[in-house]
Amino acid sequence: MIPQTEGTHPAWLPDAALVHLAAADAVVLGDGPLVDTVRTEVAHAATLGGGETAPRPAGGASPDRLVLALLDAVPDDAPEQLREAVDLVQRAPGDEGFVEVRRTGAAGTTVTMLATTGHGLLHAWFHLVRQGAAVLGVRPEGDRSGAQASLRVEAHEPAHALRVLDHWDNVSVHPVMGQVERGYSGGSLFYDDGALRPDLGRVRQYARLLAASGVNRVALNNVNVGRREAQLLTTHLDDVVALADAFRPYGIRVHLSVSFASPVVLGGLGTADPVDPEVQAWWAQTAAAVYAAVPDFGGFVVKADSEGQPGPFTYGRDHADGANMLARALGPHDGVVHWRAFVYDHHQDWRDRSTDRARAAHDHFAPLDGRFDENVVLQVKLGPVDFQVREPLSPVITVMPQTRVAVEVQVTQEYTGQQQHVAYLAPQWTDAMQTRPWGDDGPAVHDVTSGRATLARRGITGGGLAAVSNVGQDVFWTGHPFAQANLYAYGRLAWDPTLTAEAILDEWVGLTFGDAPDELRTTVRDLLSGSLDVYEQYTAPLGVGFMVSPTRQHYGPDVDGYEYTAWGTYHFADRDGVGVDRSCATGTGYAGLYPPGLAATYESLSTCPDELLLFFHHVPYSHRLHSGTTVVQHIYDTHFAGVERVEEMVTAWEKVAPLADPALAGRVGERLAEQLRSAVEWRDQLNTYFFRKSGVPDGRGRRIY
Amino acid sequence: MIPQTEGTHPAWLPDAALVHLAAADAVVLGDGPLVDTVRTEVAHAATLGGGETAPRPAGGASPDRLVLALLDAVPDDAPEQLREAVDLVQRAPGDEGFVEVRRTGAAGTTVTMLATTGHGLLHAWFHLVRQGAAVLGVRPEGDRSGAQASLRVEAHEPAHALRVLDHWDNVSVHPVMGQVERGYSGGSLFYDDGALRPDLGRVRQYARLLAASGVNRVALNNVNVGRREAQLLTTHLDDVVALADAFRPYGIRVHLSVSFASPVVLGGLGTADPVDPEVQAWWAQTAAAVYAAVPDFGGFVVKADSEGQPGPFTYGRDHADGANMLARALGPHDGVVHWRAFVYDHHQDWRDRSTDRARAAHDHFAPLDGRFDENVVLQVKLGPVDFQVREPLSPVITVMPQTRVAVEVQVTQEYTGQQQHVAYLAPQWTDAMQTRPWGDDGPAVHDVTSGRATLARRGITGGGLAAVSNVGQDVFWTGHPFAQANLYAYGRLAWDPTLTAEAILDEWVGLTFGDAPDELRTTVRDLLSGSLDVYEQYTAPLGVGFMVSPTRQHYGPDVDGYEYTAWGTYHFADRDGVGVDRSCATGTGYAGLYPPGLAATYESLSTCPDELLLFFHHVPYSHRLHSGTTVVQHIYDTHFAGVERVEEMVTAWEKVAPLADPALAGRVGERLAEQLRSAVEWRDQLNTYFFRKSGVPDGRGRRIY
Repeated sequence: MIPQTEGTHPAWLPDAALVHLAAADAVVLGDGPLVDTVRTEVAHAATLGGGETAPRPAGGASPDRLVLALLDAVPDDAPEQLREAVDLVQRAPGDEGFVEVRRTGAAGTTVTMLATTGHGLLHAWFHLVRQGAAVLGVRPEGDRSGAQASLRVEAHEPAHALRVLDHWDNVSVHPVMGQVERGYSGGSLFYDDGALRPDLGRVRQYARLLAASGVNRVALNNVNVGRREAQLLTTHLDDVVALADAFRPYGIRVHLSVSFASPVVLGGLGTADPVDPEVQAWWAQTAAAVYAAVPDFGGFVVKADSEGQPGPFTYGRDHADGANMLARALGPHDGVVHWRAFVYDHHQDWRDRSTDRARAAHDHFAPLDGRFDENVVLQVKLGPVDFQVREPLSPVITVMPQTRVAVEVQVTQEYTGQQQHVAYLAPQWTDAMQTRPWGDDGPAVHDVTSGRATLARRGITGGGLAAVSNVGQDVFWTGHPFAQANLYAYGRLAWDPTLTAEAILDEWVGLTFGDAPDELRTTVRDLLSGSLDVYEQYTAPLGVGFMVSPTRQHYGPDVDGYEYTAWGTYHFADRDGVGVDRSCATGTGYAGLYPPGLAATYESLSTCPDELLLFFHHVPYSHRLHSGTTVVQHIYDTHFAGVERVEEMVTAWEKVAPLADPALAGRVGERLAEQLRSAVEWRDQLNTYFFRKSGVPDGRGRRIY
Repeated sequence: MIPQTEGTHPAWLPDAALVHLAAADAVVLGDGPLVDTVRTEVAHAATLGGGETAPRPAGGASPDRLVLALLDAVPDDAPEQLREAVDLVQRAPGDEGFVEVRRTGAAGTTVTMLATTGHGLLHAWFHLVRQGAAVLGVRPEGDRSGAQASLRVEAHEPAHALRVLDHWDNVSVHPVMGQVERGYSGGSLFYDDGALRPDLGRVRQYARLLAASGVNRVALNNVNVGRREAQLLTTHLDDVVALADAFRPYGIRVHLSVSFASPVVLGGLGTADPVDPEVQAWWAQTAAAVYAAVPDFGGFVVKADSEGQPGPFTYGRDHADGANMLARALGPHDGVVHWRAFVYDHHQDWRDRSTDRARAAHDHFAPLDGRFDENVVLQVKLGPVDFQVREPLSPVITVMPQTRVAVEVQVTQEYTGQQQHVAYLAPQWTDAMQTRPWGDDGPAVHDVTSGRATLARRGITGGGLAAVSNVGQDVFWTGHPFAQANLYAYGRLAWDPTLTAEAILDEWVGLTFGDAPDELRTTVRDLLSGSLDVYEQYTAPLGVGFMVSPTRQHYGPDVDGYEYTAWGTYHFADRDGVGVDRSCATGTGYAGLYPPGLAATYESLSTCPDELLLFFHHVPYSHRLHSGTTVVQHIYDTHFAGVERVEEMVTAWEKVAPLADPALAGRVGERLAEQLRSAVEWRDQLNTYFFRKSGVPDGRGRRIY
């Protein structure tokens, strides 16, 4: 039985997405738990067409239409079709890879999926799911072209071995952050008010969804580690065992966020100094105990010396000392440390314009390149500040050639509408991953995260793509049903960062709304496609960021909300102009942290892209953008336009809503109404704020309060 | 035994404040529980001088130096001194009043205190305590003036029969507001995490302190009535019984804040409509049950149709309908309803400048004058908005001649530094109570609240002075030890609103620091004396108010924090000017709600007092104040000056701190350090904000960021 739970939305794995495989009459060859999972999937698919409920043995009167086989399970006397496919494999796939051999001939299409491991075979299966009806040569109705004889062999490997989804779930309800920090989707899938949920049925279902998207690791708790959460490592290790058991059938390994102070907090030692032999021994013993209970445990995630979390600075050590100490405890067990680079002074003085939070991670970590052990991954947020709708790429990614670097994205929409607003985030991630910071001839960011650009020469793999999860107990998993697309896109990009956001969106719509009328699918696609642009239009302009409400935990506008705080997130708007001078010539020098070409682009007003202008420069309101308009008029124009686009979204949805499942239609309708209300509030507050400051009236005479 | 608890600061009743009565060898005549309390007090005082521990019978060899007697307990054959005093009483004192007869002759001074009730006698006792050593003719050392033969007869009556201290305590911990809403002094004296405290020792001690200040009623729970708190009225009435028992020995009656929805929430009815006979019957029965358990129960406090609390509007009824319905349930038992006038639209649109929160209470209640029953008290906040450091008087106070009006002040320092900052609030209250809104020949506000101005003609008493408490489990009761002065001052002003803030301060310092060196007492007095002015200097300027942080629950600055919210509290600062136009000519018309003279004063820029300028008018930054300086320069000047004055306070305290009790010295020192830090933050944020907006540099070239 595949894991399904009553009343929960099936996300991108509704039965409709599998029905094309029902008649495939698939053969599965091999042994092991993940091969068994594939058999379960095949059996489930078969029931959808009313066919057999178990895979049948290979061979028979005609060639098998679909075979999924482990290479070493193919017998010497296998049918010719299968032997031929094995012969076509030039290199055995890696742990999670697979080879697809597709032959079309007079007798129809046959597909053979070959892998080295059950995990690879499971990915092969979901690859078939994603391809839809076309996979077995079923052509759309009306297609009368003759079936050309053809042979296609494709090898698939994930670009990143580590595709970790970080859950910011708390075991105990946090007094401010609740059960899931930055969670906008109800309670935690794992915990309920201080304890593990007794029924992990939804976790098993979730594991299947994640596997189908490409995720292969899950961190089980918040990087801000509370007292109860810290105990997952020791006295509450049973919780980890239970969760690992729930995730394992779909090839997902579990990680834990740990407190750097664990030796003190949990171990009763007098110190957590990483060079202290007792501390090292405590971590080694603790790690060994974890692996004794969970042999495929993934490793630790650590937020150290950041926003109040403990770290090596307390003991006069640096982040390499801290990370390596943990890495050595995990090393014997094939575990990794994800060490977050999100370190900055969160007690900054707003009066001091020389301190620049955007520089902080760079200035902390750049000097440490080369000092991290091989099983340390430096986990770097996409941008230098904190998941704003628009930021430049974090320069840390470009200055750590000897370090395994993972990029961290935020699937949960903390700053992008908190799953009340539609904001398909994949374009932000693909832009970043496909950027070539050293110029068009240089490597892309994904070449850094995959390790291809540098580390591969030394036989070291990359750091991967990490993300903060957006799911919870909500029936739609993610609050806004359309926010599922972000989770899906993350998994797909973690597997293949060269995909386009549009291609992934097509996949997601195809899977999730596969049996819906075209009109609905087109509208969903269109609503999501430009949604991040729309969100950017009505919120903080031109890359300046952080005009969000502190009171409402980053939801909705508050232009000065962070302007006089200790968080280092300022816009410096006065009656003459706005923006942060991060140039080398007159500002904080941040622009100079990039490779020379990019640094020069950002340094100069004449080349800095409009959308990042206020991130890099403080300019007068009358400054003319490359677009031809002034800064203040751009603010007015985009804010009016953004709201108009939301109004169009509402209208578009109203037209197709009757075609959708009523529960989903209702939820989307409610959220769109809230998005419109909120967008109007953003527009009016931003426009009024800048009108009051600048005194410049709208060039088109629209209402500003 | 008088109630004392180990380790708790004695506030204004340290033994040193009673020691002058130790040798008085007082005689107490009369019977009843409150007379017994007086006997206990006398006995306690006697122990302090090493004298007898019980009051002795009247008469003897020489005249009694001090007699406290109920008039009807004075026997016909009483000693001459006592008979003479009784003859001097022209009118028997009211319930809480007393007559003091003091005769000085060759044989020394004798003092006779006469009352009708034990309650009056108890007030007489604390009157003696307050007068200090002088009461029995003990002259300061060095005073060589002869003892002139003299006779003085003084009758004392409280100006207000109702002197209610409202506790905003929750029984269950509120997720945002905690155990005590707006409490800055630790946990509740009454409740701990969902239940009544088992030990009410501190409540008994508190009752004694309140009685000594003049308070005679306490409301036991928050006006925002939660589920558990609502049940105090019914299933948890035992809690009320226990608290009433703790307060009763000191003459304090208890009240409850009730939910208008109680018939639904507690009674299971389908409605709480005040004209519904079932609803009326439910309240009548419920009130009867309360009085059966607590015969001296005081009545109800109600916040209705305000900030989300239920009220009569739900049923299309008005506030008179609602209040009268409750009043009729309480009437047979001598109970009163305190109905709060704090009603406004808290979902206001900041874009709409025509809605004025300051008008709201007036516009709701003025039309209802004459419709309230005689046991309804309309409880009106001092100012029209919400306890800002500077507001004009609420006009509601001037438009309800047929209604019992209580003024409500906020002893707890919600907007005035939250008991981190020194802010002696009495000057704000005396200014308001002693204002004569109809001109110098008209009645003062306290003539309205006492009922003298209007209601007395019809034999109806006034509404009184109500307040929100500032105490908690803190060892100093109020967090900042100096915040005790606010509680003391409230009680004294409720008794006698014609007292000056300075006179009350002298009393409080004398009682609290009676045995301390003069230098310490002078410094404490000086620190408190100007403290509200200092606080006003470094916070929101010129009466504009509400530049406080929403994030930090009204502590610290956030100039735009409420500017784009639904709360109706705006300053409208733009690049040209600041302030709220509440004139009749061009604004919201609020200025016209006052009696004509005052209305004209506020309406005109040429007569509006500087300190309220921005409350009533929107003016350019270059507008010149009556003081001769411009608005923006005034902002700079006062903010620099305010911080300098806090620096002086810190220095002054450092000098005398070694003379104080170390625990108190430490606490005051910590809080002053925080006040200085916070004042600097206020100064810099306010100055920077207005500099960025106005572009006007400081005329004295000081540093603005």
